[in-house]
Amino acid sequence: MELQGDERIDYLLAEEDMRIIQSPSVFAFSLDAVLLAKFAYVPLKRGNILDLCTGNGVIPLFLTRRSESAITGVELQDRLYDMAVRNIELNEVAEQVTILKGDLKDMPNQLGHGKYDVVTCNPPYFPTPKEQEHNLNEHLAIARHEIHCTLEDVVWSCSKLVRPGGKVSMVHRPGRFIEIIELFRKYRLEPKRIQFVYPREGKEANMLLIEGARDGKPDVKMLPPLFVYNDANEYTPQLREILYG
Amino acid sequence: MELQGDERIDYLLAEEDMRIIQSPSVFAFSLDAVLLAKFAYVPLKRGNILDLCTGNGVIPLFLTRRSESAITGVELQDRLYDMAVRNIELNEVAEQVTILKGDLKDMPNQLGHGKYDVVTCNPPYFPTPKEQEHNLNEHLAIARHEIHCTLEDVVWSCSKLVRPGGKVSMVHRPGRFIEIIELFRKYRLEPKRIQFVYPREGKEANMLLIEGARDGKPDVKMLPPLFVYNDANEYTPQLREILYG
Repeated sequence: MELQGDERIDYLLAEEDMRIIQSPSVFAFSLDAVLLAKFAYVPLKRGNILDLCTGNGVIPLFLTRRSESAITGVELQDRLYDMAVRNIELNEVAEQVTILKGDLKDMPNQLGHGKYDVVTCNPPYFPTPKEQEHNLNEHLAIARHEIHCTLEDVVWSCSKLVRPGGKVSMVHRPGRFIEIIELFRKYRLEPKRIQFVYPREGKEANMLLIEGARDGKPDVKMLPPLFVYNDANEYTPQLREILYG
Repeated sequence: MELQGDERIDYLLAEEDMRIIQSPSVFAFSLDAVLLAKFAYVPLKRGNILDLCTGNGVIPLFLTRRSESAITGVELQDRLYDMAVRNIELNEVAEQVTILKGDLKDMPNQLGHGKYDVVTCNPPYFPTPKEQEHNLNEHLAIARHEIHCTLEDVVWSCSKLVRPGGKVSMVHRPGRFIEIIELFRKYRLEPKRIQFVYPREGKEANMLLIEGARDGKPDVKMLPPLFVYNDANEYTPQLREILYG
């Protein structure tokens, strides 16, 4: 497998037989993606799964270990799309996973309305900053800031793509929580499961996992909180279980 | 102090000099009220505080230990109003606390719009059941079910009564969380602090504390989770600290 620039091949955590190409200057997967891939409901065998803002394809890769369903990843950036395609090759999962290059806003027209059982997304977290504050690294800026899609674009797109009764799972920052709830409701994604992630006990949450059901009926469950580190700055047993099984 | 029926006088937890009249068949305060009284922002000296659905006055009593501000409690039911009035007398806080009898829906007209710095409320949690399912005990049914006021009535009333920039704090069930967020936003109470309470580690949340600021700007903080019991079914140190100081 050919690597470009500062790309490297890393292990995919507990998945001892899986490897992932990433690059500190372009895209490297984060805890957020891992937790989303564990949090999302996925069908075991049938159905199909769509991952928007797929980056280097980390979420589809993780999901191949939880589901035999067809998985499609969508990425806007050439450089990341290319990395995701090579990751699918590298792990020999091309029969199960397809990577598409494109804008998530075009996907409902391109892929069809209501065609997916599950849609996952780890979108850009931060509103677009002023021009001069832009992250000078364009790849990272696009992945982190709402430059090419707003939160509303993302939720709209997820809602159009998922079938009635299907699930949309997202990871985001708690500061945007109220907005997410409102957008989910606006686009008929009824919040059903929410989990907050805390860096350690006694601290405020810094991550939010949310799953909505298209046209579902109101009744939300607040899952047990997740703590990442203990007082000794080690991963908690709870998190080690998620990361390493 | 004269007691009626099955009323009894209990200690008010850590407040060794305070007593409270309650009755298992009419109204006894719950953990919910204690946690709300600790969670709510209150001014130390100036300003005024309003407690809707005050029941036997438990929240105003707790708040006298955290604030020197004037506190008003509002209760609809004669029997509970009477109990609250006696609780204020019993604890000799009549200079600070006033109990009014009335319907919270009438309070904005009666007390004036935007007159309170803080409004607290531990409202009925459950939608009104069918007639035959009604709790046969009318006092408890009114306190627990939305018989005389819906959640929307409660949020509307809080919003009208609090001043711009003032705080509204409420305790409720997580199953109603999404609805609460939507009603808070509808009535211009911007959610600022949210805390979930879990019966024990690994279980779903069963209580929700939320504070909104009238006309506040969007930016919510998810406070550290509260766990009530440990594996040995004892209160956690975290909860003992809240209950007994």
